[in-house]
Parts: sequence; C-alpha cells; structure tokens
Amino acid sequence: MIKHLLSGGDLDADTATEILDTAAEMATVAGREIKKLPALRGRTVVNLFYEDSTRTRISFEAAAKRLSADVINFSAKGSSVTKGESLKDTALTLQAMGADAVVVRHPASGAPHRLANWVDGSVVNAGDGTHEHPTQALLDAYTMRARLGRLAGLSVAVVGDVLHSRVARSNVLLLSTLGAKVTLVGPPTLIPVDIAGALAPATDVSYDLDSVLPNVDVVMMLRVQRERMNDSYFPSAREYARRYGLDGPRMRRLPEHAIVMHPGPMNRGMEITPEVADSPRSTIVEQVTNGVSVRMAVLYLLLGGNNR
Amino acid sequence: MIKHLLSGGDLDADTATEILDTAAEMATVAGREIKKLPALRGRTVVNLFYEDSTRTRISFEAAAKRLSADVINFSAKGSSVTKGESLKDTALTLQAMGADAVVVRHPASGAPHRLANWVDGSVVNAGDGTHEHPTQALLDAYTMRARLGRLAGLSVAVVGDVLHSRVARSNVLLLSTLGAKVTLVGPPTLIPVDIAGALAPATDVSYDLDSVLPNVDVVMMLRVQRERMNDSYFPSAREYARRYGLDGPRMRRLPEHAIVMHPGPMNRGMEITPEVADSPRSTIVEQVTNGVSVRMAVLYLLLGGNNR
Amino acid sequence: MIKHLLSGGDLDADTATEILDTAAEMATVAGREIKKLPALRGRTVVNLFYEDSTRTRISFEAAAKRLSADVINFSAKGSSVTKGESLKDTALTLQAMGADAVVVRHPASGAPHRLANWVDGSVVNAGDGTHEHPTQALLDAYTMRARLGRLAGLSVAVVGDVLHSRVARSNVLLLSTLGAKVTLVGPPTLIPVDIAGALAPATDVSYDLDSVLPNVDVVMMLRVQRERMNDSYFPSAREYARRYGLDGPRMRRLPEHAIVMHPGPMNRGMEITPEVADSPRSTIVEQVTNGVSVRMAVLYLLLGGNNR
Repeated sequence: MIKHLLSGGDLDADTATEILDTAAEMATVAGREIKKLPALRGRTVVNLFYEDSTRTRISFEAAAKRLSADVINFSAKGSSVTKGESLKDTALTLQAMGADAVVVRHPASGAPHRLANWVDGSVVNAGDGTHEHPTQALLDAYTMRARLGRLAGLSVAVVGDVLHSRVARSNVLLLSTLGAKVTLVGPPTLIPVDIAGALAPATDVSYDLDSVLPNVDVVMMLRVQRERMNDSYFPSAREYARRYGLDGPRMRRLPEHAIVMHPGPMNRGMEITPEVADSPRSTIVEQVTNGVSVRMAVLYLLLGGNNR
Repeated sequence: MIKHLLSGGDLDADTATEILDTAAEMATVAGREIKKLPALRGRTVVNLFYEDSTRTRISFEAAAKRLSADVINFSAKGSSVTKGESLKDTALTLQAMGADAVVVRHPASGAPHRLANWVDGSVVNAGDGTHEHPTQALLDAYTMRARLGRLAGLSVAVVGDVLHSRVARSNVLLLSTLGAKVTLVGPPTLIPVDIAGALAPATDVSYDLDSVLPNVDVVMMLRVQRERMNDSYFPSAREYARRYGLDGPRMRRLPEHAIVMHPGPMNRGMEITPEVADSPRSTIVEQVTNGVSVRMAVLYLLLGGNNR
Repeated sequence: MIKHLLSGGDLDADTATEILDTAAEMATVAGREIKKLPALRGRTVVNLFYEDSTRTRISFEAAAKRLSADVINFSAKGSSVTKGESLKDTALTLQAMGADAVVVRHPASGAPHRLANWVDGSVVNAGDGTHEHPTQALLDAYTMRARLGRLAGLSVAVVGDVLHSRVARSNVLLLSTLGAKVTLVGPPTLIPVDIAGALAPATDVSYDLDSVLPNVDVVMMLRVQRERMNDSYFPSAREYARRYGLDGPRMRRLPEHAIVMHPGPMNRGMEITPEVADSPRSTIVEQVTNGVSVRMAVLYLLLGGNNR
C-alpha cells in the first residue's frame, strides 16, 4: 500500500481498486446498528485546513471517528501560522505531537507534497490550490462503479472550468488509470490547449456540450467558483449557464442509463438546474455518502489497519 | 416518542414528562465515577450552528459525548454556506454523511422545521430566530419540578423582552401543557396585545412587575439583548433596569419558597443584580447542569436509545 | 497532589519530580501500538482559550484524548463572552456543565487564579498574559532531564524578551525549585533590574550573550513577539538578531554537551537561525513531543487518575 495519498496519479490500477473494494466493505458498516469499527483506536488524525472547507473536513472527521481514531481539527486561520510559522515547522510540530495522519487542505498547489517530505506519518491531500483532490476522484470513481457496474470503457464528460479545477485534474488521472475515457468540455479559455494530453494521453476536448452528451455514460459538472466569474477569461454568468449549464432539455439528450455527477456545493441555476440536481440520474447525494466510505478506506489502508 | 424536537408545543404532557423523567435518570449518571453511557455509541450528532452560541453548543456536545455519540461541530461561518449553498443542500449533505441527529441553531425562525422536512434523521431546534428554543423550556421545567416538586398549578412570571424571546415562547407553550400558569411581564412595547392568548389561552399579561411578584412561585428573567436596546420601542437601559430589573428589594417581595431563574448569559446590573443572581433563590447554575441532563434525555429518546 | 496548576512556583521539588516521572511513564505509551489509556474515561476537559494558541490547545487536546477524556474546545472569540458575560459566569457555567478540568489561556495575568477560586474542578494555566505558563516549564524541565540526565546543578541561560515572557517566568520558578541555576540574558530594557531576585534568589543577569555561552548546559531562546518590536524599549530587529540571536558561530561557543531549546513557534533568522534550529543540539521537536507527555501527566495527576 502507498504511504501518502497526494495525487490521483499516485495510484496504479490495483491500488485504486483495493481502495474502492475496501470502501465498499466500509459502506456495509454504515448499515449496521453500531457503525463504529475499532481499527484506528488510539491513532490520531489531524485535519490541517488552511482554507475553509466544512464539507470535506466533516467527511474526513466522520470517516476517522467511525474507525475510532482521535480527530484533532486545526484551522490555520488565527493559528501560529499567522504568527509567521512555516509550513515545515507546523508539520514537524504535528508529527512531534504524535499525528499518525495529516489531512491537509492548502491554497498552494504542491503543499501536501512538501509536507510529505517532512513527516513520518501519512499525508492525505484534501485539495491543494488548483492542483489535485484525489479522494474526490476516488469517491467519484466509486460512485460510477456502484451505479454503472464498471469503470473500464466508460465515457465520462467533465464539464466546466477545467483550468482551475483540482477535481477535474484528479479525476482525469485516476479515470485514465482505471480505463475510462474522459472528454473535457468547456469554453476554450478554460481548457488550455495542451491540458488534456499532458494529463493523460487518451483525453479528448470539446467546446460543444450538446454534441458530447448523447455519447457519454457519465456527465460530471464542475462547480463554478463565483470569485472567478469576474475574470476576463470567464464568460458572463448568463452566457456560461446558457452554453455549459446542465438543464432538463440537455439532460434528456443523455443515454437512458447515463448519470449526472457534481462534487458540491452546487450553484443551482448556474452550472446545474434544480430539475437536474434532484432527478433520479443525479448521484450528488450518493457522492457525499460514498465520500465517507472512501475516506474510511484511505485512512484505514494508509495507517496500516490491514495489518492488524 | 416524537422524531424531532422543534417546538415547546410539539410535546404533549406525557411525552414532556417522559423527557423530564429520563433527564432525572441521566442526572444520576453525573454522580457516578464513570459518567459515560454507551447508549449512542456509533451514532453521529452534528451541531449545525448558524449563530454563535458557545453555551448551547457545549451543552449539547457534552450531552452527546456522555452518551458516547460522535460529535461533529459545524459552524456555518466560513463554510460552504458562505459559498451560497442552500440550507437544503447542507441538510442533504449532512444526512448523506450519516448524521443521526442534527442540532440546529439558526437566525431565521422556522429553519429547523424546514430542515426536518428534508432529512431522515432527527432534528433538534437549538434556537431559531425569535421563535423557539424547546430544550431551554424543558430544562426550565425540569428545574422548577426539581426545586418545587411539581409543575401543575405553579404560577410563573416571565419578565422582559417577550416579543423577541424564543425562551419565553417555548416556555409558555410547554408550561401550559404541563399545567402551570404563566404571566408575561414587561413594557407594553415588548408584549404585543395578542401574544399571550395566541400562545396559550390561560396566559396573563402585566406591565407592573412589583404587583406580580408576591403571587408567583417562579420568576424567570429574560436576557436583555444589548443590540436591541437602541431600538425605538425599547426603553432606555436605565428605565428598563428600574422598572423591570430584579434587585434585592424586589426579590424580597417574592413568597418565601419562590425561585429566580435566568437562561444566561446574564447582564448583571441590567435585568438582574448580582445580589439576586448569587442568592440561594437563584437556580441559574442548576439550570445549566440540568440542561446537560435534559439534552441527554432528548438525544437518547429521539435516537431510539430506549429500544436497545 | 495539588489540585490546580497555576504557577511554576506552585510546585515543590517532590511534586514537580512526580509529574516528570509520570510523564516519562506516559511517554512509553506513545511507543505502543495502542496509544490510548482509559484513565480519564468519562471525564470532561474543557479547553477555554481567550487567545489563539493552536499549538498549546492541540497539545492539551491530544494529551486528554490519549487518556480517553472527552474534550470540549471553547474559543472565547465569538462566544457569549462577547455578549458581555463575565469570566466568573463562564467559569460557573463550565462547572455546572460538568467540566472536570478547565485548561485556560487568557490575555490577563492572573485570570487562571481567579478561575480557580470559583470552580470545584481543576484549573490548568495554559498561559496568562505575560505572567506564567507552567506546563511549558515542566516540559522544558522534562526535556533537560531527558537529554542531560539531571536538573540539579544545571546552568541554564534564558535569552530574550524576559520582561514579557511567561515562559521565562515559569521556567525560573520551576528550575530554581529543582536546583538548576538560571542566567537571564537580553537587552537591559527587557530585563528589569529587580526581576531576577524577585523570582528566585540565585538567578543571575547578563547583557552579553557571548560571554555566557561557554559556561552553560542549556541555552533557551525566547520567542520574539513581532508585535512588540515596534515598541520604544525594543532594539531594532537587526540589532536584536546581531546581539541576541543564536547563530552557528555562537552555538559553537557552547560546551560540547550543551543543548539549545525554544518554546516555538520560532522566528527563523530572528532569535535563532535555521542552522541552529535544525542542528542535533536543538531539542525543539522533542519539546513538542514531551509537551504531550507532560500534559498527560498533569491531567492524570490533577484529576486523581492515580487513585484508580
């Protein structure tokens, strides 16, 4: 098993599949009367968040607690970080306090990789800048496999601001490893010419959502980040929603079996309409549930719970 | 047993009494060497607070932990809420993550009721706007019963800014159900003409605190919210304290056995003087202790702990 | 055993040694596969922090959780404190909720002492203003003893802004009790004439770091607080670093066996250079690890864990 989880590209097909299989076992725990496993009792998981992300933090916190780990939340706002402490000193401090795993969210791309060089414990990348968010890719893969029965051979459209999306990046890397074919869809300003090939050779690009929809098994809508909507390369909100938003008529262009994904939180009416978000094709709520199972599996496997 | 606790009016006399009796059992746990019960082991309680209220949050957190539940705190400040996520999407996300109960504090009256429509788990209203705060009413009822031996037939004065008080509202509803008689006391601008009858038929209104005191078993002082003291309908602070503050001389107009309550935190010198707050008649500290027992009972009963 | 830990001067030599010995036992737990002890199961430890100090808060939180206590974090920002609640009412509230120990960080010197007068539970001073930080002194003493084999007879230089340092104050008191000799080193404006003798009779003062270094077993660098560097009594940053910063050449003036300590977080390049901070003489990371063991020992002994 790998020691850290930093990138969707870290995982070979066997390791990724082991995580998904373990997550499936974890999911069965949630159905039992007593949901708690003793696997990580006495272990300490630190959530080190340099950016707000309640949703991701809670998912990791719930996952760790269901494995009986002790969880310590460390919001870097108002911490010694603001007193000028370096990331390295913070890392060494957490390790010295006995952190077995550090789950890190950081605005700078690459910060979790640097952290992993400094600590003996495991590091899990919970989102670094516009770079990667590998547990999101794993929970997305888990959800596709659970709904469609397989990953190899699937055709997946990833739609939106690919340029700034760590979710897109991690998904392209992991899905390619697992044999799915990704098409990146969005306005030309948000899909750099060389991004697709640079990430994974078989990745396609399209600027026309309508022509892509009839041929995919999965359409994954990316969140539009409001703060980027004033940038010059960003289309107007109205233009964006008109060309790349998923509404009812567009959803009906999908094959019968195709599913609609979104990493949340949604901008209802922007990249996705309520009709689509709440339709039976939508896996948005399942993705959240699967996120806890996948994070249980990742923590369990990284911390050697399988050696007990 | 009911599934949610949203309003002091949700509870019939039998259910309210079951909660109070269960709280009394929980209180005995606090006296033991090991204070922890395994009743909710493996269950997850989320404290979803859209307003700061450390006191209420800690009370629920302590209650849930003594029942061995996992507690996740979610302060809506700096969360995806600020990214524009709706209350509904937040609710669905928490449910999808496996929250068995959501304890919600929200500035909008009615928010917990809407939440309860969307989730399968239990919702506990920990204060919604100027509307209700039912566990406060339960702990107040518990405290009266513990001190005075009964609730039926008690005469209770609720004094202060009734108009904006969720504590007053929940108390009137619950105390009426349990057979106590409430008199609302305060300046006319803070007691709307029709409020008393609308809440519960037998409720009286008085604008003269001194005339009420000799005839009550309980006087419950409401907290003055400083931010309202600049409003046009609010008396000057000095005038308010003079006419509706409880000081030593006024306290001595109470019957020998009568008690003084306050939900905290107090403005000492405003609605209550230190002499009164620290007198043996004051139940303010007991109310805090009883709050933990009552919230243990509520979580235990809502989450079906009695079926184990 | 004492009931509260408020000052480095509270401890006689026997009690301090008992804490250090217990901490050594606690440290062995960290080496085991299951790091958790059941000693404080069912006990509640409240971290009451009126100032940000993630590092200290996490250390106490990790210590309490390894003893199986329930931990409730209470950041006074945005709490009822801002609604005007007094420290006394907060203390009574926490006690009423069943807090067995309150760990308090407060900007006002003496606040933990006042707290201790109001509550039945144990109070641990986690830093009060410029006054004291006794668990820091204990972890420093633990680290010296672990590295150098003894405390009695050691010669310890404490270097920097002694005037505003609670770390210096608590160390002088505790080290004197344990038989070490302290020399305070820094600019005259930061070492009041009478401070040394007032704290402990045998304490020396020097304004010349270079002349002190060849004769000490331990040099403890104090953190420079940036917010004080604009004060009139503070030397310029450059002047301070030149005269009182510890760099490689200065470190090589120390005896072969001498160690370098710092309470963290460091200002690398200000009071200490990276070469020194990362050298084998540096105990900075060990201090953090020892901090958890010492705080486990303090909580265990104060809460009567030794009587189980």
